[in-house]
Amino acid sequence: MAHIDLGVDEHEFPGISGPMRYRPETAKPLNELAEVLLRGPSSLSRGERELIAAYVSGLNECEFCCNSHSAFAAIQLDEGMDLVRAVRTDADAAAVSPKLRTLLRIAAAVRDDGRKVTTELVDAARTEGATDVEIHDTVLIAAAFCMFNRYVDGLGTQPAAEPAMYAAMATRITTAGYGA
Amino acid sequence: MAHIDLGVDEHEFPGISGPMRYRPETAKPLNELAEVLLRGPSSLSRGERELIAAYVSGLNECEFCCNSHSAFAAIQLDEGMDLVRAVRTDADAAAVSPKLRTLLRIAAAVRDDGRKVTTELVDAARTEGATDVEIHDTVLIAAAFCMFNRYVDGLGTQPAAEPAMYAAMATRITTAGYGA
Repeated sequence: MAHIDLGVDEHEFPGISGPMRYRPETAKPLNELAEVLLRGPSSLSRGERELIAAYVSGLNECEFCCNSHSAFAAIQLDEGMDLVRAVRTDADAAAVSPKLRTLLRIAAAVRDDGRKVTTELVDAARTEGATDVEIHDTVLIAAAFCMFNRYVDGLGTQPAAEPAMYAAMATRITTAGYGA
Repeated sequence: MAHIDLGVDEHEFPGISGPMRYRPETAKPLNELAEVLLRGPSSLSRGERELIAAYVSGLNECEFCCNSHSAFAAIQLDEGMDLVRAVRTDADAAAVSPKLRTLLRIAAAVRDDGRKVTTELVDAARTEGATDVEIHDTVLIAAAFCMFNRYVDGLGTQPAAEPAMYAAMATRITTAGYGA
């Protein structure tokens, strides 16, 4: 049970979906932020951006966000869930592009504390071809999931009871988008 | 100098104002989130909500966010900057209402890790009269500033060079709102 009465069947609406229905005034900008960051026009693929979100959520040990964004990444990456699991296990050893590896290092630093993002980390990303917008968006995706993870866990919401629910969410998000 | 070229005079646009101009697509939902959370209809006053934002930003040691939201709180609280400083120094000892004191404890827990919000902390807030929406909004304000703080510091932006800039921002925010 969540800490507050979300007015929904928490089995049917796990994780962030309960608070989103409870407070539509805040759900609107939260969904718009997720939509532009994770699905809007970008030189990073949607799969790569969801992978950053899943990775940060895993570091924050937010079960609902990590499982859902892992599913969203897997369905949009050629390498599927194997690559998502590899990144979550050891991002430095996973078979991602050299550029994405440097961006994941920036995301991990942001997750710890924004001040941990060093000139060296940014220069390494740039050396591997990362653009300023890609670096900006990586910082903001990592920062945003430090919010989403705390929102979901701070309200005491529950993860999905069945793994199939994450796959269903992945189909919905990748066809209709966030907030649909 | 920020880690990326924000395309603005960073002296004129310190902290989050540089990234907001650099990427208007993400600035829009970020400003809308701040507007609804900190200035939208609520049984918590605007001053109280800005105080929660300043308190969390202080715990995260984000100089720009802490100074700006301290100014925004001070201008909207009868007790002014003295109360803001007292909360940032020792929230448990500060002369806030018993309800706000329990909400600040929830905010500090969220800032640390969403899972640190216990049933005891929520029950204590409810005993002091906090509603479910107030608890929800406190959790989301604290979570959101864990994002804003990391966004500002993760991009290596600089705080304002002169304290007067925070007072000028406070006048603008409290008259025109976020994103104006």
